[in-house]
Amino acid sequence: MSFRADTEVRAAGDGAYESAIRDGWDVVGKANGGYLMAIGARAMAAASRPHPVSVTAHFLAPGEVGPVRIEPAVVKQGRRLTTVRATLSRAGSPLVELLGSFTERTDLGETVRVDARPPELPPPEECPRIEPTAGGFPPAIMGRVELRLHPDDFAFTSGRPSGRPEFRGWLRLVDDEPIDAFALLLAVDVFPPTIFNANLPVAWTPTLELTAHVRCEPAPGWLRCRFSTRFITGGMLEEDGEVWDEQGRLVAQSRQLALLPRRR
Amino acid sequence: MSFRADTEVRAAGDGAYESAIRDGWDVVGKANGGYLMAIGARAMAAASRPHPVSVTAHFLAPGEVGPVRIEPAVVKQGRRLTTVRATLSRAGSPLVELLGSFTERTDLGETVRVDARPPELPPPEECPRIEPTAGGFPPAIMGRVELRLHPDDFAFTSGRPSGRPEFRGWLRLVDDEPIDAFALLLAVDVFPPTIFNANLPVAWTPTLELTAHVRCEPAPGWLRCRFSTRFITGGMLEEDGEVWDEQGRLVAQSRQLALLPRRR
Repeated sequence: MSFRADTEVRAAGDGAYESAIRDGWDVVGKANGGYLMAIGARAMAAASRPHPVSVTAHFLAPGEVGPVRIEPAVVKQGRRLTTVRATLSRAGSPLVELLGSFTERTDLGETVRVDARPPELPPPEECPRIEPTAGGFPPAIMGRVELRLHPDDFAFTSGRPSGRPEFRGWLRLVDDEPIDAFALLLAVDVFPPTIFNANLPVAWTPTLELTAHVRCEPAPGWLRCRFSTRFITGGMLEEDGEVWDEQGRLVAQSRQLALLPRRR
Repeated sequence: MSFRADTEVRAAGDGAYESAIRDGWDVVGKANGGYLMAIGARAMAAASRPHPVSVTAHFLAPGEVGPVRIEPAVVKQGRRLTTVRATLSRAGSPLVELLGSFTERTDLGETVRVDARPPELPPPEECPRIEPTAGGFPPAIMGRVELRLHPDDFAFTSGRPSGRPEFRGWLRLVDDEPIDAFALLLAVDVFPPTIFNANLPVAWTPTLELTAHVRCEPAPGWLRCRFSTRFITGGMLEEDGEVWDEQGRLVAQSRQLALLPRRR
């Protein structure tokens, strides 16, 4: 059992692909959005070019364990990029709609300018891990990743949110499984919702849309991540993500738009 | 001639829509990406619900003046949102592929928390306008909008870039045309490329992908905007945009991924 095996896709004829939502990648029975996105993107890559550069997903319905079908359609094959859309569905019902551009490789050029730094974090062993709890909180998916939060951002688990809608921490797959571009799509959606650290009523904030840019392939080792929210307005909030590798390079950038549950 | 008239779409049967890329919305003959996105989104709204919440566009080929066809397809109609994809094409050739979610109205709830401020700008009359030049630079589209830059960010026009890949300024449509959610899609792509203010060889940076979140309908008046880049890496750069209205509310947030031209 690995992320790679659990996101595998298989050609099913007529340009479609089969896969399955596997057990253990869920939050209270609902598959993680980044995990679903990774399954969809693997089918899109199989239909076009191997490396995702920019992928957008709109989440339509929660995904439960079981078979899924992905129907990618190449929109345009260009010189450097191929643009593909895809529907990931279960029993004929769409769960995720995707649009992305794919290329031969993600390392297309040198670093010209970076006006940012990776988040400051104590070493991984000084950052507490979010441990999975069967069927509850923290969710099962925390058994598939090793997510170690900045101590200041961890206290929400014992009822003391930092007051800032932000999470910083280290991330890797369990068993030291290498992180490829598809695992980065998981990485940008696997931290707790930023709102858990705001001094607001805690609520799950379902993702409407998530866009991830893969900026380069990560070096082996830990990912250093930061997710933050600046605007909780109009019934929505954005979560901006940055994922850096151990060599201090930005490997992915993400933004999602999530819905604030309506007050009763 | 107005933005509204120049982005109008007309049902053409079979669920498709006709429109046209009109003269004057271009940069050296190529239609502005945000303008194309607005045409596409108007067809998507006509096919679903009136207000765009999150729209992503992948740009496939430059758009020249002339008729275009938009084929939207509703992916899912939910309780609050309808998700739609669309292809905008010219003479059977796709120019833009879009994916978005639409709702009845964009003001879905109150402001809960904002950890940011609109960009500091001198009053509009103290910010120099980018004046259009027929067929050259600045481009024709600057005749359709009134774009007034922060004086520090304007000096690039006389060969003195600020050294920071950032533009701050005021924006409105000419003739005081009201700015609706579709005009916000133009707003997030109409400022000069941020790279023009970096101390780098000036180059057009074609947009691969642009995602815009419409956070609320703007109040009448000027938009207060900021576009900035932090990472020029791997042959790509992101441009993050914030658009605020005169009442100091964030009305749109955007990010685009653009390609850095290859060195010769």
